[in-house]
Amino acid sequence: MIDLRSDTVTKPDEKMRKAMYEAEVGDDVYQEDPTVKELEERAADLLGKEAALFVTSGTQGNQIAGLVHCKPGEEVILEAQSHIFLYEGAAMSAFAGVQLQTLTGERGALNIEDVRNEIRSDDIHEPKTSLICLENTHNKAGGAIIPLENMKEIYTLAESNRINVHLDGARLFNASVASGIPVKDFAHYTDTVQFCLSKGLGAPVGSIIAGSLDFIAEARRWRKRLGGGLRQVGVLAAPSLIALNENVERLQIDHEHAQLLAEGLQNIEGISLENKVDTNIVLISLKSNNIPAFLEKLKGKGIRAGQFGANKIRFVTHKDISSEDINTALLKIQQVVLDR
Amino acid sequence: MIDLRSDTVTKPDEKMRKAMYEAEVGDDVYQEDPTVKELEERAADLLGKEAALFVTSGTQGNQIAGLVHCKPGEEVILEAQSHIFLYEGAAMSAFAGVQLQTLTGERGALNIEDVRNEIRSDDIHEPKTSLICLENTHNKAGGAIIPLENMKEIYTLAESNRINVHLDGARLFNASVASGIPVKDFAHYTDTVQFCLSKGLGAPVGSIIAGSLDFIAEARRWRKRLGGGLRQVGVLAAPSLIALNENVERLQIDHEHAQLLAEGLQNIEGISLENKVDTNIVLISLKSNNIPAFLEKLKGKGIRAGQFGANKIRFVTHKDISSEDINTALLKIQQVVLDR
Amino acid sequence: MIDLRSDTVTKPDEKMRKAMYEAEVGDDVYQEDPTVKELEERAADLLGKEAALFVTSGTQGNQIAGLVHCKPGEEVILEAQSHIFLYEGAAMSAFAGVQLQTLTGERGALNIEDVRNEIRSDDIHEPKTSLICLENTHNKAGGAIIPLENMKEIYTLAESNRINVHLDGARLFNASVASGIPVKDFAHYTDTVQFCLSKGLGAPVGSIIAGSLDFIAEARRWRKRLGGGLRQVGVLAAPSLIALNENVERLQIDHEHAQLLAEGLQNIEGISLENKVDTNIVLISLKSNNIPAFLEKLKGKGIRAGQFGANKIRFVTHKDISSEDINTALLKIQQVVLDR
Amino acid sequence: MIDLRSDTVTKPDEKMRKAMYEAEVGDDVYQEDPTVKELEERAADLLGKEAALFVTSGTQGNQIAGLVHCKPGEEVILEAQSHIFLYEGAAMSAFAGVQLQTLTGERGALNIEDVRNEIRSDDIHEPKTSLICLENTHNKAGGAIIPLENMKEIYTLAESNRINVHLDGARLFNASVASGIPVKDFAHYTDTVQFCLSKGLGAPVGSIIAGSLDFIAEARRWRKRLGGGLRQVGVLAAPSLIALNENVERLQIDHEHAQLLAEGLQNIEGISLENKVDTNIVLISLKSNNIPAFLEKLKGKGIRAGQFGANKIRFVTHKDISSEDINTALLKIQQVVLDR
Repeated sequence: MIDLRSDTVTKPDEKMRKAMYEAEVGDDVYQEDPTVKELEERAADLLGKEAALFVTSGTQGNQIAGLVHCKPGEEVILEAQSHIFLYEGAAMSAFAGVQLQTLTGERGALNIEDVRNEIRSDDIHEPKTSLICLENTHNKAGGAIIPLENMKEIYTLAESNRINVHLDGARLFNASVASGIPVKDFAHYTDTVQFCLSKGLGAPVGSIIAGSLDFIAEARRWRKRLGGGLRQVGVLAAPSLIALNENVERLQIDHEHAQLLAEGLQNIEGISLENKVDTNIVLISLKSNNIPAFLEKLKGKGIRAGQFGANKIRFVTHKDISSEDINTALLKIQQVVLDR
Repeated sequence: MIDLRSDTVTKPDEKMRKAMYEAEVGDDVYQEDPTVKELEERAADLLGKEAALFVTSGTQGNQIAGLVHCKPGEEVILEAQSHIFLYEGAAMSAFAGVQLQTLTGERGALNIEDVRNEIRSDDIHEPKTSLICLENTHNKAGGAIIPLENMKEIYTLAESNRINVHLDGARLFNASVASGIPVKDFAHYTDTVQFCLSKGLGAPVGSIIAGSLDFIAEARRWRKRLGGGLRQVGVLAAPSLIALNENVERLQIDHEHAQLLAEGLQNIEGISLENKVDTNIVLISLKSNNIPAFLEKLKGKGIRAGQFGANKIRFVTHKDISSEDINTALLKIQQVVLDR
Repeated sequence: MIDLRSDTVTKPDEKMRKAMYEAEVGDDVYQEDPTVKELEERAADLLGKEAALFVTSGTQGNQIAGLVHCKPGEEVILEAQSHIFLYEGAAMSAFAGVQLQTLTGERGALNIEDVRNEIRSDDIHEPKTSLICLENTHNKAGGAIIPLENMKEIYTLAESNRINVHLDGARLFNASVASGIPVKDFAHYTDTVQFCLSKGLGAPVGSIIAGSLDFIAEARRWRKRLGGGLRQVGVLAAPSLIALNENVERLQIDHEHAQLLAEGLQNIEGISLENKVDTNIVLISLKSNNIPAFLEKLKGKGIRAGQFGANKIRFVTHKDISSEDINTALLKIQQVVLDR
Repeated sequence: MIDLRSDTVTKPDEKMRKAMYEAEVGDDVYQEDPTVKELEERAADLLGKEAALFVTSGTQGNQIAGLVHCKPGEEVILEAQSHIFLYEGAAMSAFAGVQLQTLTGERGALNIEDVRNEIRSDDIHEPKTSLICLENTHNKAGGAIIPLENMKEIYTLAESNRINVHLDGARLFNASVASGIPVKDFAHYTDTVQFCLSKGLGAPVGSIIAGSLDFIAEARRWRKRLGGGLRQVGVLAAPSLIALNENVERLQIDHEHAQLLAEGLQNIEGISLENKVDTNIVLISLKSNNIPAFLEKLKGKGIRAGQFGANKIRFVTHKDISSEDINTALLKIQQVVLDR
């Protein structure tokens, strides 16, 4: 099976498995797991933040940001197609008690004037705007890179209004590798950053949330409440360290594969490419528009992709996909379109 | 002072004051206040609902709807410029723990296809859509009437998806009087309705929330938690009964005054009328765009109006405004524009 | 009917009704109601606090205290039989997201050592203790007065641990009149105070919450979310001012009536007095223990009292009860006990 | 270091590490991880429940129970010294919005009459009682086993009042092995059960929550919101399967070690044994009462134990502790007491 549904499906390789096998561990609730500590320090350093915390998923990292930065009855500004708004089960409203104010961006990037207009006044009818959440790369916009300049503008505006900025950087390393901009530079225009170890970086489980020492101290408390305070979790930190140390540069290969796939798809009659491919995500639509049937037939030929909203299909390249796989996928897709 | 800021500023008249003075009361927490009971029965009857409950404000009524209809982590669909989203301090997210999904409507009316597209799937990443909130008349759209047919479409769609519909009918009687459609007919396409006694109807304080017997039983519990379980509140129910029994038809006069005002404003150089005037609200913009200075000067001449968002001014007609007042207001506005 | 169920059942008298009739009003959401302002200033002054806010009920005042003083995931210490814990529908956990840590007091007064022991440590497993709520007089303890010295001890301990103290003073004026200690002295050992205008003081509806200017600014926002931002609410503030200006000293009469009642009840075979009567509440138990039947028969004879927990009956004296009423009540109770 | 602070400190052994190394995995958010599925089926089967779900910690499992079983503003009855009340950061109030009603038990077991008395009435002042949480074994009561008969009584009472029962069975297997009662029999008197794989059973990370199919479907949604929806988590499920299949019976050894330790401690002058040792927990107090100094000295001699509340020390035996370790520990403790 060539699985292009998501970069979350990558399986731990031999090296990661060996790392788990050998991991030095301790009880991380007591902050005694040396491998977790090493991972957190490495991540904080990469991002240029004071401290970092291992969390079990991107959702957990994002929710912690909402819980630490906001009080109930406040408002969060974020892009209308962001993961936090679409795919986290309304958790930020459920747990942090905040209202989400969505703005439609351009390829995932918020328009600075829109943000300025939606910052709330002091009137008692209105919730205080306390957080802006960005997403880079932006999943729903097809892995689009949010320009550094845009992040800078927003951060500057936020700062001058005493609003925090949190970056959902689930795929921040894709943005960094594709743009050549260090993650630290993106992180510079944020108060807190979350990134995933289990997507393109290939670790089996886990994400990082990073920020100031005070933020991380509070984050640790909320992680405990969410059930993310774990014991000998060095067994997950060990493959995560490999992910961080060895799987970053190779994201470039995934991006090349995505280009290859996009070019091939564009040449298939009946398929429209729906995004400019910045990183490892390719979106298409079908003339026929019968997406479930298309995906089912494709699966029958050993290729998996995912429905993405009402009218799109998403392909995601990742480390378990070779250029040969891309060619095979294109061939099979062609066959399904021709219904052979 | 000719106060056109809102229809909330109406003061109780002699008849209402007398009603308060004479009100037969009891302890309404024990459900022993006969005047409150009479008001609630009258309101339920008017709306064609099984039961109704006196609440202290429209916000309290709307919040109770969210609390009874939804569980935390669910989603509510509503218009992007609705009062619940803009002006209730993010309370529905803070108290009911729900995410608000906003859709931009046409003169406040949701597009049925937009609603259909935003009803969430069963996927565990997504919050369940559990409530749609409508607003009729729609304040931010300039007192626009949501067409009955639109409400019917939405209610039918909602019903077939097991989604409840709540109507923020703060100014529902304005919609009814202007359209000639009984409030009961609007209420027919809802599960619950809130309307205000303290706006155009002229009572000093209070709103009604109405729905099924089961809904009202739960609403009573949430009203208690919100601090809306009151004692000898017949003193507020008495003027509210007058509001309901005697001040409905006269809303037609407010609507005529709004037309008069709109026509006059249209003829003033430097002012643009910003809404089609369906009921008692008139919106304008200024060529000069210096709204705070304009309003300050106007106030100096004995006329008050309110800033409404970044670029508009709102005038609201009500029972304490005569046609003479409208003429005076127009004269003074003309003077301010000419800066005399 | 001689209604001894609660001091909430008092009906507004002629003077209060006249005050409502004549009340000068404005739109209090715009802070333009002069009568409300006068009431709030008078209340703040009486309590020695910077500012005060009119709220619709004691529950609303207490909930606002929880919402302003606490963040979700924190802990509140309060007496196990306090109104907030027993009778506010778990609202403080529902809205403010706080855990209530209950301690069993002595006649409603918390033991200082118990409080000290239950203040939480910094360990991330534990919620931060952020608020202590006291209740004076203590309803469930039979209107018991919490000694000033006890309040001082607790406040001092709280202060040194950066914990706020809120006083549910629903019947604080009863404590003051009975002890001869000004309400200001009780309020001195608190950060915020709530007291009810609608209990012994006889106003139809309303309570006051008081504290620092910063607290009241935040309280005003939460009151709006709770639906307690009202319009021409001077009609309620007017009788409240009478309550505050003219009905305080007369609470002494209610206390004397309670003594009279307690003495009489003690002499009735089959009845045990269950509290030391400090103020206007008398608690009894029945040898027969068939409380519902007893209360039903009593009602048949024109006397109402309330079941209070599983095994007690509560009588509350108030301004609509005369000494003659007490004597009649005692006679009827005697008859019911003798089953005549 | 002989670490007796907790059974959470156990490190994965060779067999578990090998299982991680070899684990067959998939993306568990898509429910495609075969090892997780096997674990969940095995756990459901052991407990006699329809379904089970892997969660990252006992806290996460308990919080999910609160979130699924309760609505905000309801009440949960639980023992005053239970883990959920003391050590989960007030999360159940913060997330589920419920009030916790604590009852002081006898060795952790709730008195059935106390529970009956505290089930709330229908009065609108009172929160609905919707859940009872039990804890077996009971940590704070020194690993005490809650008798099956007690659980049966409570479950029967709960059922007849339409209240759910959740069991925090973090150490349920200890209760089972020590009593000879199958875990299924304990689980029979519950609606949902949580047990930990990472305590006595020795897995590095994880817990199980089990219940009906409907419960687990909802639990899966809340797990996602809490950030517990993981990817190739078969790497944690694999050692957990070993924990479940091979480490249950050996808990008997931990219990024998605890007996050995308790007997030895009893014979040391200056130490009082504070619990009847049912399972793997031993509690002591010191005549000197200088616990921090005592623990520090002990640590200097290679033995670790934990402070447990203000006046106690807790020792927990587990699979990384041998009988020789117990003897060494006793010797060192003796030395510290004699200050040598």
